[in-house]
Amino acid sequence: MAIKLEGRGYIVLPGPPREMQTMFQNYTIPWITQNMLEEGYHKLYSKVFKIAGLTESKVEDMLKDLIENQTTPTLATLVGMGEVQLRLTAKAADQAAFYEIINPVQNEIEKRIGTYIVAEDNETVLDNVVRLIKGRKLSLSTAESCTAGMLSASLTSIPGSSEYYHGSIVAYSNDIKEKLLGIPAALLQEHGAVSEQIAKAMAKSIRELTGSAIGIGITGIAGPDGGSQEKPVGLVYIALSGLDKDIVKANYFYGKREYIRDMSVKAAQLLLYEYIKEE
Amino acid sequence: MAIKLEGRGYIVLPGPPREMQTMFQNYTIPWITQNMLEEGYHKLYSKVFKIAGLTESKVEDMLKDLIENQTTPTLATLVGMGEVQLRLTAKAADQAAFYEIINPVQNEIEKRIGTYIVAEDNETVLDNVVRLIKGRKLSLSTAESCTAGMLSASLTSIPGSSEYYHGSIVAYSNDIKEKLLGIPAALLQEHGAVSEQIAKAMAKSIRELTGSAIGIGITGIAGPDGGSQEKPVGLVYIALSGLDKDIVKANYFYGKREYIRDMSVKAAQLLLYEYIKEE
Repeated sequence: MAIKLEGRGYIVLPGPPREMQTMFQNYTIPWITQNMLEEGYHKLYSKVFKIAGLTESKVEDMLKDLIENQTTPTLATLVGMGEVQLRLTAKAADQAAFYEIINPVQNEIEKRIGTYIVAEDNETVLDNVVRLIKGRKLSLSTAESCTAGMLSASLTSIPGSSEYYHGSIVAYSNDIKEKLLGIPAALLQEHGAVSEQIAKAMAKSIRELTGSAIGIGITGIAGPDGGSQEKPVGLVYIALSGLDKDIVKANYFYGKREYIRDMSVKAAQLLLYEYIKEE
Repeated sequence: MAIKLEGRGYIVLPGPPREMQTMFQNYTIPWITQNMLEEGYHKLYSKVFKIAGLTESKVEDMLKDLIENQTTPTLATLVGMGEVQLRLTAKAADQAAFYEIINPVQNEIEKRIGTYIVAEDNETVLDNVVRLIKGRKLSLSTAESCTAGMLSASLTSIPGSSEYYHGSIVAYSNDIKEKLLGIPAALLQEHGAVSEQIAKAMAKSIRELTGSAIGIGITGIAGPDGGSQEKPVGLVYIALSGLDKDIVKANYFYGKREYIRDMSVKAAQLLLYEYIKEE
């Protein structure tokens, strides 16, 4: 329900998130936009660059002069899950006029930090991964320990994922790592389940078992228990086994179990993106 | 920041959800409570029963006289994801006094719909599943198709899950169902991947492969494509293979891909709860 009373607008929405979200997207935003324009407000447009591999302060350093001196558009940074967002905002008559306004600044941004931009606007890294995988007719499978299926779930969240996604083995216990993934007991003994070597072996094994072009392996300590001085809670190894090369990265995440698992999924998507982009 | 101005209270919270949630829980709620009590408001207590297997209108029917005639406590129903919540609310001096007030109504509710109550207050069905599994020293593994690891992820969201959780095979393609789960090609051909028979075979296979006490199999059509008149989008078979018996249920969910997958996970948790409760 939306009413105007004594110069103020009131919008009353239902509590259940599913109902609220639909009504907010489809009715509330258009209502607010319409009413603000009628009252002489300008329409603001914005463009968002999603940046991975740089901290917020590093982005600010690299774009310091732009952020400080730009007025049209203005630039602002924002920290998201595993990424920094850079937002360009300007008043404009329409979308096309907006793109024209931001063009010189956008070029300068891309020149300076273009290689770190992993997605734009409403796109996610995952959207880009899926687009590239489909375009190159690659296929994918995962072997997960601490994330226990979360990467697999994310890769199949997009309709039509059966086109490129084969499956996953969630090897939560060492026993399953041996039995289902065929990781040698001696390797587990020598390096421990949370190690570069096991992440690589998991990625390679799932790629071969499923006949996929790319296999991803994740093994880490999500906590709150199980950490040690040498291998603390939040240490997560992510490996990618491709047709031509293998990559493995050690990640250190600081936070609660849920955060560490979410960040591991983001990091795996990013590793996939960086690999596929260069293929 | 919280200030009082001209008889109104204003609370300004930061935008990032992680920061906001902490500040809301730890500072905002206590601040509101304190200020309301000072201004002579009564403290309200409530108890929530989470009900599965009955629709909201069925719950209302079965408790019609209580809902209509009760004033202390009042009763209200609310629809959640895969469950109906029944909330009892009353003014009380403290928690103990509240429990005394609701005792007669609670007894009556439990007499009428007790078998459908699956969790209370902040507990989830999953919390109860994990408590029972740990208490009975059972172990668990899953074989997932349309949910692609979401059930596995949920079962490991609770710290210490390695105590009871072995692992999962996400068999997204038929090929993987054959290769990794050992489902006979002839069975897939005869009944189709989305069938009671395949759900049962998946549950049994993962239980045996991992040496778990309980195996869960999920196969369904999350959509938006892949549905037919006979097997529509939203049809999800969930099977449980236990040491002593096998169960399989056909579920029909109506909604988007994300909703169908979320509901499938909830339904699988519920099936687990009902099975373990009776063990």
